[in-house]
Amino acid sequence: MTKKIRMGMVGGGQGAFIGAVHRMAANLDGQIELVCGAFSSNETRSIESGKALYLDPARCYASYQQMFEQEAQLPAEQRMQFVAIVTPNHMHFPVAKMAFEYGFHVMSDKPATFTLAETLELQSLLSKHDVLYGLTHTYTGYPLVKEARQRIANGDLGDITKVVVEYPQGWLAQAPGEDNKQASWRLDPKQAGISCCMGDIGVHAANLAEYVCGDEISQICADLGSVVEGRKLDDDGTILLKFRSGCRGVLMASQISVGEENNLRIRAYGTKAALEWSQQEPNSLIVKYNDQPIQIVRSGVGPLSDIANANLRIPAGHPEGYIEAFANIYRNFAGQVRAKAAGVQATAVEQDVPGIKEAVRGMAFIENAVVSSQSDTKWHTFVIEPQNITL
Amino acid sequence: MTKKIRMGMVGGGQGAFIGAVHRMAANLDGQIELVCGAFSSNETRSIESGKALYLDPARCYASYQQMFEQEAQLPAEQRMQFVAIVTPNHMHFPVAKMAFEYGFHVMSDKPATFTLAETLELQSLLSKHDVLYGLTHTYTGYPLVKEARQRIANGDLGDITKVVVEYPQGWLAQAPGEDNKQASWRLDPKQAGISCCMGDIGVHAANLAEYVCGDEISQICADLGSVVEGRKLDDDGTILLKFRSGCRGVLMASQISVGEENNLRIRAYGTKAALEWSQQEPNSLIVKYNDQPIQIVRSGVGPLSDIANANLRIPAGHPEGYIEAFANIYRNFAGQVRAKAAGVQATAVEQDVPGIKEAVRGMAFIENAVVSSQSDTKWHTFVIEPQNITL
Amino acid sequence: MTKKIRMGMVGGGQGAFIGAVHRMAANLDGQIELVCGAFSSNETRSIESGKALYLDPARCYASYQQMFEQEAQLPAEQRMQFVAIVTPNHMHFPVAKMAFEYGFHVMSDKPATFTLAETLELQSLLSKHDVLYGLTHTYTGYPLVKEARQRIANGDLGDITKVVVEYPQGWLAQAPGEDNKQASWRLDPKQAGISCCMGDIGVHAANLAEYVCGDEISQICADLGSVVEGRKLDDDGTILLKFRSGCRGVLMASQISVGEENNLRIRAYGTKAALEWSQQEPNSLIVKYNDQPIQIVRSGVGPLSDIANANLRIPAGHPEGYIEAFANIYRNFAGQVRAKAAGVQATAVEQDVPGIKEAVRGMAFIENAVVSSQSDTKWHTFVIEPQNITL
Amino acid sequence: MTKKIRMGMVGGGQGAFIGAVHRMAANLDGQIELVCGAFSSNETRSIESGKALYLDPARCYASYQQMFEQEAQLPAEQRMQFVAIVTPNHMHFPVAKMAFEYGFHVMSDKPATFTLAETLELQSLLSKHDVLYGLTHTYTGYPLVKEARQRIANGDLGDITKVVVEYPQGWLAQAPGEDNKQASWRLDPKQAGISCCMGDIGVHAANLAEYVCGDEISQICADLGSVVEGRKLDDDGTILLKFRSGCRGVLMASQISVGEENNLRIRAYGTKAALEWSQQEPNSLIVKYNDQPIQIVRSGVGPLSDIANANLRIPAGHPEGYIEAFANIYRNFAGQVRAKAAGVQATAVEQDVPGIKEAVRGMAFIENAVVSSQSDTKWHTFVIEPQNITL
Repeated sequence: MTKKIRMGMVGGGQGAFIGAVHRMAANLDGQIELVCGAFSSNETRSIESGKALYLDPARCYASYQQMFEQEAQLPAEQRMQFVAIVTPNHMHFPVAKMAFEYGFHVMSDKPATFTLAETLELQSLLSKHDVLYGLTHTYTGYPLVKEARQRIANGDLGDITKVVVEYPQGWLAQAPGEDNKQASWRLDPKQAGISCCMGDIGVHAANLAEYVCGDEISQICADLGSVVEGRKLDDDGTILLKFRSGCRGVLMASQISVGEENNLRIRAYGTKAALEWSQQEPNSLIVKYNDQPIQIVRSGVGPLSDIANANLRIPAGHPEGYIEAFANIYRNFAGQVRAKAAGVQATAVEQDVPGIKEAVRGMAFIENAVVSSQSDTKWHTFVIEPQNITL
Repeated sequence: MTKKIRMGMVGGGQGAFIGAVHRMAANLDGQIELVCGAFSSNETRSIESGKALYLDPARCYASYQQMFEQEAQLPAEQRMQFVAIVTPNHMHFPVAKMAFEYGFHVMSDKPATFTLAETLELQSLLSKHDVLYGLTHTYTGYPLVKEARQRIANGDLGDITKVVVEYPQGWLAQAPGEDNKQASWRLDPKQAGISCCMGDIGVHAANLAEYVCGDEISQICADLGSVVEGRKLDDDGTILLKFRSGCRGVLMASQISVGEENNLRIRAYGTKAALEWSQQEPNSLIVKYNDQPIQIVRSGVGPLSDIANANLRIPAGHPEGYIEAFANIYRNFAGQVRAKAAGVQATAVEQDVPGIKEAVRGMAFIENAVVSSQSDTKWHTFVIEPQNITL
Repeated sequence: MTKKIRMGMVGGGQGAFIGAVHRMAANLDGQIELVCGAFSSNETRSIESGKALYLDPARCYASYQQMFEQEAQLPAEQRMQFVAIVTPNHMHFPVAKMAFEYGFHVMSDKPATFTLAETLELQSLLSKHDVLYGLTHTYTGYPLVKEARQRIANGDLGDITKVVVEYPQGWLAQAPGEDNKQASWRLDPKQAGISCCMGDIGVHAANLAEYVCGDEISQICADLGSVVEGRKLDDDGTILLKFRSGCRGVLMASQISVGEENNLRIRAYGTKAALEWSQQEPNSLIVKYNDQPIQIVRSGVGPLSDIANANLRIPAGHPEGYIEAFANIYRNFAGQVRAKAAGVQATAVEQDVPGIKEAVRGMAFIENAVVSSQSDTKWHTFVIEPQNITL
Repeated sequence: MTKKIRMGMVGGGQGAFIGAVHRMAANLDGQIELVCGAFSSNETRSIESGKALYLDPARCYASYQQMFEQEAQLPAEQRMQFVAIVTPNHMHFPVAKMAFEYGFHVMSDKPATFTLAETLELQSLLSKHDVLYGLTHTYTGYPLVKEARQRIANGDLGDITKVVVEYPQGWLAQAPGEDNKQASWRLDPKQAGISCCMGDIGVHAANLAEYVCGDEISQICADLGSVVEGRKLDDDGTILLKFRSGCRGVLMASQISVGEENNLRIRAYGTKAALEWSQQEPNSLIVKYNDQPIQIVRSGVGPLSDIANANLRIPAGHPEGYIEAFANIYRNFAGQVRAKAAGVQATAVEQDVPGIKEAVRGMAFIENAVVSSQSDTKWHTFVIEPQNITL
């Protein structure tokens, strides 16, 4: 009897937001089963949360340490195979580290850790343990983002000469009420780290640009700001970019752009053609040429790349959204777990999950952005080294 | 230990399309567990399909009859609670009927049955058995469709004076290849019944118009046609509408509108304001006034009705799509099942699932449309009676 | 010294709306000069209006009769060459008739006359006088409408199988105040004729469909209504269409569709491809295929037909609008006038102006629509004969 | 007998592009008459051009010097009142200077002159001569741009905290052919000055941002580049902005963004609301709020500001475009000329024309941008002083 991939969860108790999204993403394709969890550092709340999720109370743990210890003692065909980490950011590192040590694979919410130093340590640990690591940079899970990446990789656009990536939100335009938990922790350096806007959303934009273009940011000129008075962390910023290939660009991220919901959007201009994609209308990929009609490539219509098709579920005209993109990450990662258990190579589709490399570059992006913003020199070289930062 | 609602499935074996969509919809919220199935009339294929879905082979049945018999003998806390019927249309009726007789609730794919007469018989049976019946008129599962309905019910638009509802597709514009199973059964009167275009998609448009407006079609003037030569059933049609309230309208459905994906769209004009919603951009509801700016009401932004909010899962700017709408039907129906099991009243949200009334009106719509189209008289009165139709 | 084409005007005095639009359209390209006018049946008002337009007071006439008489006595190189008729509808016929008799060309506002019988008489008169006649069915003046027509004529779409044309407005959704002159005359059978909605805007939609498709409506099934209580004329209607080619379609026109501005829009579906154009975004022509990306053909981008290019003025990305479309009719008509004066054949571009044929078909459309709407029989054959109509 | 305002033209002979646009703009409203011109430095070509425009050959001059001299000798009621300068950039200054000296008003194509120093000299001359000066920063002629400015001035958006203005084009993405006159002069420092992209289009974006926000750029951090190899001037650039008010922003301009037509677009975010406007869809102004529906303010719909209404010509739903915006500048400037001739104060609408202040700031923008781009220091203070620049 074949079985679903077994998942545990740390964090995501009742009232938490992102944990529920991870669970929907894991559920969607019916290939993953949530079998246990340490949903809260409060034991009662953890167990109540687990019961509401129809779990066996015996596998609703008081702490992640307890979970790893006890699950490790279960028979191999029962114990969880990977853990989804959906705690506050500062807990990502210790949980992932302990999971590695117990031999559990990890699917971590973004950002990977609190600091680049920690992510580099995770990277080092990964090379010593035979485990898998995935990171939910969700937006690269969209099929048409994969299509965009594939087209650029194919050379369909020619050389990429200009990239504009933006991620505007408006929800922090006013000082949030004290009861807004989602807002307050993101603006607190002790919980969020050295950046709010770049750490929370700018890093998604950077990841999207690098993923789509198959390129790496090499120099930046950042202007981060705290538009709402009294904030210790940035709530808005613009960064001029240079890529390794010589391509130039600009990254805008903002949490004070009133009226914007979650408008992550990328435009990549090449010598032959250009691409445009917006997360709020994810089933359309706009392709532009000089002297030809604009093309709107649509999910499920016409010839798409294999990688895009493999990440679509339903026919054209039936919109797929954010949860589906998130579920692609989970399903592809489950494929990696299954392949490893079977001792075979994961497929290209299964391997197409953000991992430790993206984790490192993401944390480096945040630290480089803050350092550049604090500098009077125009261009700052993007380095993969922990930065010494005083806010 | 609380448990998920237990679902069985008839149809939906490997290679089938809609069964997989039903399963994703049932999976999404983690409240429903697929426990058994008769996935194919071929026993081996049924069992193979079940195994690929990680089911216990003992509960992968050779036939739906066997499934109902054997599941009925399982202890109450193990046996399936409802069956999802995702077979070809002509099997909906016998499967639903038998499910009723064994006391299982039914979630049926659309259309309810092969003929109106059968649906009326189901309606009659339902009044004799203490079971629940749901029908996947998916499009009314969208949160902003519910918002539209609520606003009209509130009187926000004034009296509705004009409704334009359309459902264009293009996939049958050319004679399909013989291997196109989705196309060939829909165009075969023996498998699809008396109508292709109106039966497959026109009925969704009619249902959407009645649901949104809280009104009923009372008279029609239909012009159905077979644009591609040699077809026995309609592949395109336009129907002039009159509603009980006196409101007038038009319904267009087409499968030969080249380049259209699945562009179900409704516009409802009232004496004070108008609404516009399109399934391909389901997270926006356009509200128009004379002498005021157009408003784009967005999922998750600003004050929405309780019924809309209850059917949304994630914050503004994270698009929800077709599977989420489908999952709303499953989740709300699971709520009905849970409430009935607990002997309590289902909530308004849980009750908001298309049921036998929609099943009857849908089948009546199809039959009335064909009769009207065959008539030389302009207006045909919409009746809930089986029609005597010769194609 | 070459000279501009000399235009006179009947109607369009101070406070009138459409006369001003005609003058802007005539002005735009600097090829036409307004030299005289009978702007009002009130002599003082006519002269005041003319002075405000910088005319020689000697050529601001008290009546159109006086204008034709006196202009005819001027030397050929001074006298007006054509008259723009922008009076209320019931005056179009006598003015045009007299112009013909004096040998002046006519550019008439739409509709051509008050009844089909009058237009047929104009047609007959035209065959006896060597004059030119143009009609401002403005919307076919848009470059991308011409592109659409050309592509269909080329066979790029295959055979056209379905046409959806709609013209919704909302401005008559409420009973207008008595001071709303634009509304009150249109709703008065004595001033507007037998139809408000079809006569004012439905006829534009019919003209657009026939022009774009190069086809003629042959049968109709009309449902016209007066949504606002107490109206004698229609303010809304839907008409099922059959074309000579066998193509089927639907025409919707409405003045009670709250929130709609002037949303004339056409979709033409062929066996190979489909076209979509909307007057409110006139610089885009959407072309759709099955299994290929949607194309957005843009004014000034890529290879367009000669006829489209000849009617564009400025490079891509600089939107051209309604006045430019109107001006295309004037400029092309001026070309006809110039060619005739020079005794040469007008070019294809110059000939592409709505004329007496469109005038006849337009008036016939209005009368056939009203007759069909009054009938209980589904299909009415479109005839070019004056209809005997009692409202 | 009242008379139209009399215009002369320098430049704009046959084959030239922008001169024709100026003439259509001047023609549109029938208030301005082209009476003379020096359309080319080649006498024959100047006269041929003038004749094709139906001018009196006696007033088609061989040079602008001749035109000013001879027109000045005509009776006041015949001689031209203002000159439209539509020559290549380097000729703007001498022509404007001489016009001032002869007492003619000037409407200059943009940019004002070749260098900031020249514009400052024009400013100085203006204070000595009793003449008017207008500059065709066309995009601020759009009615909804004026609406945007007014709303921000009213405080409807609260304090502006972020501005994103962009002007992407794609037409210089490849090295242009030698016959592309429009491209070659713009890329030649001798004809275009120190900048191509910023001088040609970036300056429009800067002007738009300052006009809409009622604010001034005070600091910049520019990254200009020549994407196509071998170019001496910039063809792309991004500039971080700080405004006097403390508002931050970013300006992007590009001529190598393949597939972009003329997509000038501005987003202004305030503490209460945000505005978005795009030149390619100029009849819509998008207004966004947190927690309220998006509003689409449309030309002619609902309450608009007086200044917007005064610059609209036709009712809602009839798109007005680029020529109309351009014509607003001409019409308003003609009002200034008429008022000055009458010895009265021009109205607020008439005064709303870009003038010498915008000319100075525009030239300063170009020079500051180039200096900043050449610097390694992040922030450059925007100064109104000629810069010493070596390319």
